[in-house]
Amino acid sequence: MAHLTTINPRSPHVTSPRSSPASEKKSREAATLIYADTATNADQLYFSRVDVHDPFIAFGIGGKRYTVQSALEFGRVKKARSFDEVLALEEWSERAKKAFSARAKNTTSARTRTPVAIGPAEIIATIAKAKRIRRFRVASDFPAALFVKLGALGVEVEIADGPLFPEREIKSPREAAAIREGNRLSSVGFSAVEDILRRTKIRGRELIFEGRPLSSERLHFAIQAAILAEGGRADDTIAAGGDQACDPHERGHGPLRPHELIIVDIFPRVVKTGYFGDMTRTYLKGRASEAQRRLVATVHAAQRAGIAAVREGVDGAHVHGEVLKTFAAAGYETRRGPHGSVGFFHGTGHGVGLAIHEAPRVNSQPYTLKKGSVITVEPGLYYPGLGGCRIEDVVQVGARGAKPLSSHPYDWEIR
Amino acid sequence: MAHLTTINPRSPHVTSPRSSPASEKKSREAATLIYADTATNADQLYFSRVDVHDPFIAFGIGGKRYTVQSALEFGRVKKARSFDEVLALEEWSERAKKAFSARAKNTTSARTRTPVAIGPAEIIATIAKAKRIRRFRVASDFPAALFVKLGALGVEVEIADGPLFPEREIKSPREAAAIREGNRLSSVGFSAVEDILRRTKIRGRELIFEGRPLSSERLHFAIQAAILAEGGRADDTIAAGGDQACDPHERGHGPLRPHELIIVDIFPRVVKTGYFGDMTRTYLKGRASEAQRRLVATVHAAQRAGIAAVREGVDGAHVHGEVLKTFAAAGYETRRGPHGSVGFFHGTGHGVGLAIHEAPRVNSQPYTLKKGSVITVEPGLYYPGLGGCRIEDVVQVGARGAKPLSSHPYDWEIR
Repeated sequence: MAHLTTINPRSPHVTSPRSSPASEKKSREAATLIYADTATNADQLYFSRVDVHDPFIAFGIGGKRYTVQSALEFGRVKKARSFDEVLALEEWSERAKKAFSARAKNTTSARTRTPVAIGPAEIIATIAKAKRIRRFRVASDFPAALFVKLGALGVEVEIADGPLFPEREIKSPREAAAIREGNRLSSVGFSAVEDILRRTKIRGRELIFEGRPLSSERLHFAIQAAILAEGGRADDTIAAGGDQACDPHERGHGPLRPHELIIVDIFPRVVKTGYFGDMTRTYLKGRASEAQRRLVATVHAAQRAGIAAVREGVDGAHVHGEVLKTFAAAGYETRRGPHGSVGFFHGTGHGVGLAIHEAPRVNSQPYTLKKGSVITVEPGLYYPGLGGCRIEDVVQVGARGAKPLSSHPYDWEIR
Repeated sequence: MAHLTTINPRSPHVTSPRSSPASEKKSREAATLIYADTATNADQLYFSRVDVHDPFIAFGIGGKRYTVQSALEFGRVKKARSFDEVLALEEWSERAKKAFSARAKNTTSARTRTPVAIGPAEIIATIAKAKRIRRFRVASDFPAALFVKLGALGVEVEIADGPLFPEREIKSPREAAAIREGNRLSSVGFSAVEDILRRTKIRGRELIFEGRPLSSERLHFAIQAAILAEGGRADDTIAAGGDQACDPHERGHGPLRPHELIIVDIFPRVVKTGYFGDMTRTYLKGRASEAQRRLVATVHAAQRAGIAAVREGVDGAHVHGEVLKTFAAAGYETRRGPHGSVGFFHGTGHGVGLAIHEAPRVNSQPYTLKKGSVITVEPGLYYPGLGGCRIEDVVQVGARGAKPLSSHPYDWEIR
């Protein structure tokens, strides 16, 4: 959904030290509230800066961060020192139980009373009262049941119009370095692939590496193992050849063939920081046809045209347009068929950070690029029969142009 | 939140072929609706059975499954054949645009009209009208903003009271086999650890493996690489020694020491199926003290007592109680301190499936165990100074007792 909402740069945020007096006043009014785990929710990781893999309560108000943790996580989260206060779940469950039992007592007779069920909503309501929090502000993906329950308990909750932390879109030098490290890991993966393709023998229609047919799965493993050894996770790495690569998100399976284009898309997460890299190269083992060479050259030209158009204040749709123009000028058509599309049928890029896909999106929708945004530029062309090609790098949007955050050679034809 | 809600076994579900006539009638009324990706949302993976890593619309009604996919995913999702119908996002966006522009025309003057923003809510509303769906039913973690927006558009949405798919709790033989495979991968990881510990040398306060100090990180890597090679992901594997292991979810970092307990908790996801395994063993390289031996023996006895109590119809709190009794009888106390707890301060177990933590929870809350549920039994004791020990296996609840779905030796002292 992220790509369908708009960023509101004036949204209040508790952790921003540069917020204006007006927004500071507002942040004192509404506490930022998250109920999620850090493995699957980038807002929670951004806010909490400690890994907790079950959903938990975190909130921020008056420049301070609070969380509620069970005994299972309490000690570890406390030691991580990323919160100003760690509240004990067991203690606040007890307090909530007392508060809501008292309420129930006042409204029902003793005979009809049932035990009060205490969940996150009751705990949040109890904390809100104790800490005099009048209102909460939550992300669009806040759990609906909890939202409704809080409302029923009289807790005021507003859903952010746009991202909960708009500043996540603008990457600090430290964040940019973390993303650069992710891309270094992508490059480690490409080097592993190139090494294998160089040592692979062509035997008729087969590719043979170390005595066995070379498959997508063997490339996945080689990439993932190489990146794991360097501190990253490249879980869903794509290494797809031939017509398989014409589905841009097909990971690839089974034997790879000589003289066919192989798309390798590696988007590792750096374990230490949680930030992602995201790069794509397209390879071919054997001898490329003229049509394949023209396809790859055109995609590369489109990528350069896209990157050249990136600059603070430019419309992302203009960057996307430069890619479209390059393809149109070279005569590559895009068509939608009943079984899928051919040509160029995805966006030119997307933001990268603690999530692999985040704001901004670079596609046909108008969206002004901001200084400090980090985006991919990844045009591709896909024609079953001929094959697919995608080339992807990551850049940071600057006042005068794009600053590269990824680096790896573009040599692709391996004899 | 999963552990705080209750299961409603009578909830309607579109995909159950054995549903009663009454529930079938109800399922015709309310379509099950999901808006999530399959990487982070187990309901979506359970329903969609194809990997899509950005949030997408999926719904089921009348025993049929539908999804809306962009050109980027359309071909691949269609080929996976898990949906009865794959709707093209671009086409339905157009239809929604027309429908909502027409609406806007009727209610505002031409001069004040702004372009209609089309998002998932407008698309769902348009499809609901075309397919004559009167009501949707969503999970408790459905995105709040989309829930509110659908309501504003006049689409009726009810939030499931309990899990969206209660049948996820009861594992079919095929699902049990997939979990067993996950546990086989855990066992592969333990074998890698045992091999390393056997080949490790003790040099004073240091453990030396292949010429370098043995660390938690080196064990993580060895475990993850071994499991990766066999088709699994063991991303957040724990290998923590000494006092670090007294925080049950601390992954471990830095050098491991001789004569200290090392907790190794491996919960790999099988890439092919998405199901998890989850097992824990505790090791020691060197010579254990009497106190350490008694600790490990007591945890193992508590685990056996817990497993022996598992049976269809038994209260999970009783299983937890058997563990508590074992610890109390052996004189191991549980206390909460300002910096964390010592003793046994987590649940005895949890359901495992497409999510690593799912229904049911086995702890002090009453919850009747159902036949076919798959749960961990994982008591632990944690005392800084002495160290931590946890032993975990996975069983399926049967009419006459627990059926083991995991298997690995319990030898722990490696000289």
